Amino acid sequence: MATATDDVDVLIIGAGPAGLTTANSFNGSGLRVRLIDIKAAPLQFGRADGLKSISMEVLDSFGIGDTILKDAQPCEEIVLWHPDPKRDGVISRTMTIPDRVEELGQIERVMVENLYKHGSVRVSWNTQPVALHTDLSSIDDPEAYPSTLTVQNTETKIRETIRAKYVVGGDGAHSWLRKYLKIGFSGDLTDSTWGVMNLVPKTNFPDIRKVFVVHSKVGTVMGVPREDKLVRLYISMDGSTRHTSVNAQNIAPEKILEAAQAILAPYTLEAGRIPWSSAYNVGQRVADEFARYDRIFLAGDAVHTHSPKAGQGMNTSIQDGYNIGWKLRYVLEHKADRGLLSTYQSERRPVARALIDFDKAYLESFARKDITHDEFLDAYLAGQAFTTGIHIQYPPSLLVRPVSTNSQPYATSLAPGKRLPDFQMVNQSDAVPIQAYHRFTNDGRFRLLVFPGDLSQGVAFSRYTQLGEWLASSLAPSSGLEIITIHATKRGDVELLDLHPVFRPWSDEEGWDYWCVYADDDSYHKGHGRVYERLEISKAEGLLVLLRPDGYISLICGFEKAGALVDFFKELKPKSRTRLGATGGGRQSHL
Amino acid sequence: MATATDDVDVLIIGAGPAGLTTANSFNGSGLRVRLIDIKAAPLQFGRADGLKSISMEVLDSFGIGDTILKDAQPCEEIVLWHPDPKRDGVISRTMTIPDRVEELGQIERVMVENLYKHGSVRVSWNTQPVALHTDLSSIDDPEAYPSTLTVQNTETKIRETIRAKYVVGGDGAHSWLRKYLKIGFSGDLTDSTWGVMNLVPKTNFPDIRKVFVVHSKVGTVMGVPREDKLVRLYISMDGSTRHTSVNAQNIAPEKILEAAQAILAPYTLEAGRIPWSSAYNVGQRVADEFARYDRIFLAGDAVHTHSPKAGQGMNTSIQDGYNIGWKLRYVLEHKADRGLLSTYQSERRPVARALIDFDKAYLESFARKDITHDEFLDAYLAGQAFTTGIHIQYPPSLLVRPVSTNSQPYATSLAPGKRLPDFQMVNQSDAVPIQAYHRFTNDGRFRLLVFPGDLSQGVAFSRYTQLGEWLASSLAPSSGLEIITIHATKRGDVELLDLHPVFRPWSDEEGWDYWCVYADDDSYHKGHGRVYERLEISKAEGLLVLLRPDGYISLICGFEKAGALVDFFKELKPKSRTRLGATGGGRQSHL
Repeated sequence: MATATDDVDVLIIGAGPAGLTTANSFNGSGLRVRLIDIKAAPLQFGRADGLKSISMEVLDSFGIGDTILKDAQPCEEIVLWHPDPKRDGVISRTMTIPDRVEELGQIERVMVENLYKHGSVRVSWNTQPVALHTDLSSIDDPEAYPSTLTVQNTETKIRETIRAKYVVGGDGAHSWLRKYLKIGFSGDLTDSTWGVMNLVPKTNFPDIRKVFVVHSKVGTVMGVPREDKLVRLYISMDGSTRHTSVNAQNIAPEKILEAAQAILAPYTLEAGRIPWSSAYNVGQRVADEFARYDRIFLAGDAVHTHSPKAGQGMNTSIQDGYNIGWKLRYVLEHKADRGLLSTYQSERRPVARALIDFDKAYLESFARKDITHDEFLDAYLAGQAFTTGIHIQYPPSLLVRPVSTNSQPYATSLAPGKRLPDFQMVNQSDAVPIQAYHRFTNDGRFRLLVFPGDLSQGVAFSRYTQLGEWLASSLAPSSGLEIITIHATKRGDVELLDLHPVFRPWSDEEGWDYWCVYADDDSYHKGHGRVYERLEISKAEGLLVLLRPDGYISLICGFEKAGALVDFFKELKPKSRTRLGATGGGRQSHL
Repeated sequence: MATATDDVDVLIIGAGPAGLTTANSFNGSGLRVRLIDIKAAPLQFGRADGLKSISMEVLDSFGIGDTILKDAQPCEEIVLWHPDPKRDGVISRTMTIPDRVEELGQIERVMVENLYKHGSVRVSWNTQPVALHTDLSSIDDPEAYPSTLTVQNTETKIRETIRAKYVVGGDGAHSWLRKYLKIGFSGDLTDSTWGVMNLVPKTNFPDIRKVFVVHSKVGTVMGVPREDKLVRLYISMDGSTRHTSVNAQNIAPEKILEAAQAILAPYTLEAGRIPWSSAYNVGQRVADEFARYDRIFLAGDAVHTHSPKAGQGMNTSIQDGYNIGWKLRYVLEHKADRGLLSTYQSERRPVARALIDFDKAYLESFARKDITHDEFLDAYLAGQAFTTGIHIQYPPSLLVRPVSTNSQPYATSLAPGKRLPDFQMVNQSDAVPIQAYHRFTNDGRFRLLVFPGDLSQGVAFSRYTQLGEWLASSLAPSSGLEIITIHATKRGDVELLDLHPVFRPWSDEEGWDYWCVYADDDSYHKGHGRVYERLEISKAEGLLVLLRPDGYISLICGFEKAGALVDFFKELKPKSRTRLGATGGGRQSHL
């Protein structure tokens, strides 16, 4: 029962998708970050229900998207089955819908390996939190460690005291941290019950290797093909009703398989291997608070639970972790005031609420016996649109500056607070095509995307050169910005070394930087990205887009309004009051 | 100086591309295979000069293509520079040619990791061969261990005696094994001298991140971009002449850099880091024998050396290893007579000779001062065509059966002895598109590709079903064949379970096999492979293609000539005389 102590900048509880994404945001940072988890090792089978493109972009920005995709099972089409009235209610295939989801088993393992590779985050397995104390007198002092968490090794029983500037709880639906803070978890009072199972199927059901939803008279089965010949099945355990009081704890794997067999009849289903199965009661709930004092944050299943059907649990958790991760890093690196952190709750809680609303409607559509085919399809397609993330728009804040109404209308498909869509661009120097999020790696920096238009036009070229001079003298040196150019010129008509040096920075160790200027042009083997066209950017006017480290857009302006960038970073900067506190002139500090 | 002993089926000397490819051919085999190398660990920087598609197909079949590509630097275009007579001979860019090569630094490391992952091959580093004895009396006994190799640990000096049924030497241009066997290495008497260097360039040469060839008045530089901001440069060290007597041992890195600077002037070139550099004399040579007694084989640089210019060293070495690897495995698994092994020399030596002839012409084109632009381009394009491997055709043998002249003309773009081109096909059961060589993993099995045409046509369907019945009764059970169907039907018009079970085998553990039937059809997101069209296969007639484990075509026939398959495997099988020997009734054996 010996105790040790540790002081960290960030303590993360829970190595699930939310916690691991938060942790990966600190790779290469030099901050002191710890991740603890009660498990003995990362989950091998994963709980993912399909990764949407928005999550792949996050993984790409950590440099692990390709590794995860390598073992992924792509899901190309979704098939719906319903009782056929003409055949006495026997199930029959009613619709096939194209889809594009990657079904991943290894994501948590790869994210942990990435932490080990970078070595920036200390990971402690077999470790559970047992007590938390928060010193309210120091919460406004940016250099203080207000939270003291006692943790215990589940094997040795040795306890340790960890003092943390910030705590992130990604500890799941039964979150210890949420309960400890007595944060309400509101929503339905009753649950529906689901069984879930990974199995190697022996069956004559013809769509077993597709994503399928079978809605029979006695319940619902959803299937998702996975790696190694496995299929993941979600099975309704309370028949076609809900609001039952079935206790998921008492459901054996045989019962889950039996329920699936009844729903899939007259097709047969036997199990080869069943490497994993589980059952759970699920209600749609959202936490009342996502953050306390802007010192303790909750993310992922700890603040929103819902059915597995829409495949959104993992995606939303990843986005939560990605949102809080860079913000903590940015504040801890003294680049912004603590006030920035309040945007975590204001940005992510509305997304969780919208997700739960969607999930409710979606689950209703599964549970209703009398649903028509068209109603089901509507609900399904609404889910597909939701899951791409393109409808999410964060509200105006320190980080999101609306386009002023009297300015020119720029790029109608982009908007502050929305995510920059991924696109292909071609490197100016080596002609290699690359997806934007492969290039925009997560290093905690804002990025200024310069779309200068067609540089073979004299007007565009001189406007671009002037911007370069202005950036070099006023903004670039102090802001820590990375500047990326995407021009709309035939690549062969541009020579990198003719461009202003601020767009291709020199390093005494490595010469010119060849990875900051790209063309929106044909590639040799992968076609044309057509980003100006797709994002509706005027080649004549050009455009500046300021991108947050998480890929959301902070600010959009024309070249003539570039001064707005200076204002943006001035308002973000730590206040002098705070800086005094940091150097010991202000409030009490633990340092 | 203690000695240990070991008995192995195959002993491989040298963990370069040839040896590692041979070794990877035994993954999952259960045979006793050892790989020894004098190095302390796998080469980190690699010596690859660009991987051609033919090599990528091999790596895909080992399941490691994606891993290697992940860190690869794609090279999209090649730029040529020549002295400009109008500008007093100053070099200027004369041509830009699209290319598609992956520049890899990690290939040897990944191949070693793949050996560790499968655990089928024992790898011993720091181990060099010191003596070899071959028992000529037992070379015809398939179960004998005719070769006894003494090896020594370079650190502990401990010696070990290894008895081997077969030995493969992939031990490089200065091959110990080739010299020990006194095998002649014929070709040029004189060498040219080259420097080679990995560096982070600090330069104003505008094409530094492309593949470039600068042919100036004072020599030649070839550049290839690599990972981590590195560029690989090849620099002629004897100016624009050859047949010099410069000794490569005496050339310091500074001299190599100086030579590059002189050639690239008036552009400047400085080096940031130089993680690796070397210099060597090179002559075009081919070994007189590639095999001795069909018990000892030589592969890779041990049997052919040439300039680095065409980027063929690694590709040809991989193909050597891939050729001998599966053949040894097949014979050792008692599926074929030892006579099969004679095809290694008959297939690979002509390729090496053709490579050297090409390289000679290519090097001449670099060395000539008066070469015209068109002449250079011709030589260059000849190289490109050569490097895809599509012009290689192995001669008729036990393994390659020419189409008899009185049979119908099938699939004009396919030919026995040529490699099956890679193509995309769509899985019948899950709609996932896949490249053929991702599916055709290297497991030592022959594959029968069944192209039944359009199965929605009654004639085609019943012909296909009859073939299924015949295969089930006559061939499939005993041959160890894998049968893959690629039909030319709209995927939605075919139900897997309607097809004859021989095409979708049942397993009591895993149910139906969903990975044996594919459609030549549109995919949702990656277009249409159009393999019938590209390979000129008649949808009306259909076609059978027997594929060797290394992806070369053994036999092509129509459905009505399927009996040829039975004859093929009958002739391949171990002779009863040999089997008597194996069971002790024949010659003296060491067992």
